[in-house]
Amino acid sequence: MGPIKIGIVGVGKIVRDQHLPALAKDQSYRLIAAASRHGRVDDIANFPSIEAMLDAVPELDAVSLCMPPQFRYDAARTALIAKKHVFLEKPPGATVSEVEDLKRLATANGVSLFASWHSRYAPAVEAARAFLASAKVKSAAINWKEDVRRWHPNQDWIWAPGGFGVFDPGINALSIATHILPAMFITSAVLDFPENRAAPVAAQVVFRTSNGLPVTMDLDWLQTGPQSWDILAETDAGKMVLSGGGAKLSIDGKIVHDEPEAEYPMLYRRFAEIVRAGVSDVDLAPLQHVADAFMLGKRNVVEAFFD
Amino acid sequence: MGPIKIGIVGVGKIVRDQHLPALAKDQSYRLIAAASRHGRVDDIANFPSIEAMLDAVPELDAVSLCMPPQFRYDAARTALIAKKHVFLEKPPGATVSEVEDLKRLATANGVSLFASWHSRYAPAVEAARAFLASAKVKSAAINWKEDVRRWHPNQDWIWAPGGFGVFDPGINALSIATHILPAMFITSAVLDFPENRAAPVAAQVVFRTSNGLPVTMDLDWLQTGPQSWDILAETDAGKMVLSGGGAKLSIDGKIVHDEPEAEYPMLYRRFAEIVRAGVSDVDLAPLQHVADAFMLGKRNVVEAFFD
Repeated sequence: MGPIKIGIVGVGKIVRDQHLPALAKDQSYRLIAAASRHGRVDDIANFPSIEAMLDAVPELDAVSLCMPPQFRYDAARTALIAKKHVFLEKPPGATVSEVEDLKRLATANGVSLFASWHSRYAPAVEAARAFLASAKVKSAAINWKEDVRRWHPNQDWIWAPGGFGVFDPGINALSIATHILPAMFITSAVLDFPENRAAPVAAQVVFRTSNGLPVTMDLDWLQTGPQSWDILAETDAGKMVLSGGGAKLSIDGKIVHDEPEAEYPMLYRRFAEIVRAGVSDVDLAPLQHVADAFMLGKRNVVEAFFD
Repeated sequence: MGPIKIGIVGVGKIVRDQHLPALAKDQSYRLIAAASRHGRVDDIANFPSIEAMLDAVPELDAVSLCMPPQFRYDAARTALIAKKHVFLEKPPGATVSEVEDLKRLATANGVSLFASWHSRYAPAVEAARAFLASAKVKSAAINWKEDVRRWHPNQDWIWAPGGFGVFDPGINALSIATHILPAMFITSAVLDFPENRAAPVAAQVVFRTSNGLPVTMDLDWLQTGPQSWDILAETDAGKMVLSGGGAKLSIDGKIVHDEPEAEYPMLYRRFAEIVRAGVSDVDLAPLQHVADAFMLGKRNVVEAFFD
C-alpha cells in the first residue's frame, strides 16, 4: 500500500505551524493538494474550495479539515460522500449532533473519520493516565489560563456563536482529563461573556466523577505573564501535576516524565493507523462537556473584550 | 410476576396531574411510597427524602423521579445503586453526560432506566411518523408557543441555570421531531434571555437533516391567546400538520387522526414493558439538541420577566 494521498482544507495558522511540518516528516502521507479561501501551500495544487479540489484531484485518499468548526460539517460531508477519509481538527464540529451524523456518513461510505484531540498526544499524558489508574484519586483540578491576545490574535471566529471562546483551549484540557480521569459530568458552571462578544472569556466549572469525586476546571483567557495548562490530582500515591498542556508529569514535586512535544506527528500516525485498519476514531466526550457547560452554566456579563 | 411496587419522588404539579392518575389505573403497578420535601400523597407512606424511603421500604421495585432536573442525578444514582428500576421524568437530567453515567450505572446494577418523553406518546405521533416515512419530505417547521404564566406559574427552578427555560416545553417538541423526522442537527440558533433570568424565554433554531432539508423551530413562552404546539411538514404527499402537541394529524387540511390523549398511561405501560424485558430505554437526542442550541446559539438579552 502506497502513501496516503492527502489534501488539506482551511490553510491558516494551525496548518502552517503544525500540519505541514508533521505531514512533511511522515512517510505514510503524500500531501498533494490544498483548498482555502485565503491561504495557500507552496509547491502543490491549490484550490478555492474543497469541491474544486475533489473535482480536480480525484486520486485523493484523504482530507484534513482545519477551517473553523462552524464550517467543518459541510466540508466533511462533501468529503465523506466522495469516499475520502477525513481528519477533523479539534473541535470536530459546532455541535455534538452534527458529528454523530458524520460518524453515520463515514460508516455508510466505508471510510475512516478521525476526531483529532492533539493534546491527548502530549508526551506525558499516557504516563499520567497510568499513574492515575494505579492510584486512588481523591480530587482533581484543571487550570487552563492563557493570554488570548498572544495565542489567538484577531481571530474573530473564535468569539462568534459556535466559536467556543475560552472553551477552545479548554477543550484541549478536557480531551486530556476525559482520557486520564474516571468518567465525570458537570454539576455547575459559571461562564463569563464579555459584553461585546458571543463566547465566554472565562469559565469556572465543577464536575463530579461517577464515584463522587470533585473535579474543578478554571478557564481564563486573560492570563498575562506565566501561562498555565495544568491538571492536578490529589491521590493516595501523592500529588500529581501534569503541566505544560500534558508535556511534563511530576509526583510530589519530583519530575517523572519530561519529553519533547510531538502531538501532530502522533495525530497523523494515529490517522494512518485507523485508515489502514478501516475504522473510525471519534470520541465526543470533550465536546459533550462543553455543550453541557453551555446548557447548565450560569452566564455572567463582564467587561468588553478588544484585541 | 406481581405488580411493580413503585415509589414516587418529588411530588409536585406533574405528579398530581399525571403520574398519580396514570398509576391508579394501571394494574401493573402498586404505588406504595412517596418522598418529597414539600408535597405528599394521601393513603401511602410518605418520606422527606429518597434515602429515607429506600431505607424504610426495601420491598420497592422501582421509583419515578419527578423533581427538577438539577436534582435528578443524585436521586437516580441512589436508586440505581439500591437496584431499583428508575423512571426519569423529562428532561432526564441537567446534562447529557450525567445521563450517560446513569445508563452505565443501570447496566452495572442490572436494572432498567427509562428516560421518558411523554410527548412521544401523544395520540397522533405514530401516525405522523408513518406518514413521513412514506412521503418525501421537503421541509419542516416546529412551532411551540405557549404562555409560561399559565403553564408554569411561579416555578422559579425553570428559570435557574439548568432549568432549560423555554426549552422545557421545547424539548417536548424535540422528542416528537426526533422520532418522526430524519436525523438532524442545529446549524444556527438565537436564544432570548430575559435580563433578570438565567434561562431563555424564546428561541429560534435552524436545523438541517442529514440529507440537507431545512427544519426550523420557533419557541416562544410569552404567547397569550391561542397556544400552538405544532409540527408542520411540506411533502410530496401533501402538507402535514401535527397539532395540539401531537394530538391531531391532518394532511392537506383533512383530519386523519384525532384521538383522546393518554400520554402518561402509555409511558407507564412502556416502563413496565422494559422492566419485564430487563432492558433500558434512554434516547438522549432531544436533550442533545438542547445542549447544542445552548453551545452554538447566539444570546440576546430581552426585557425582564416577572411572573
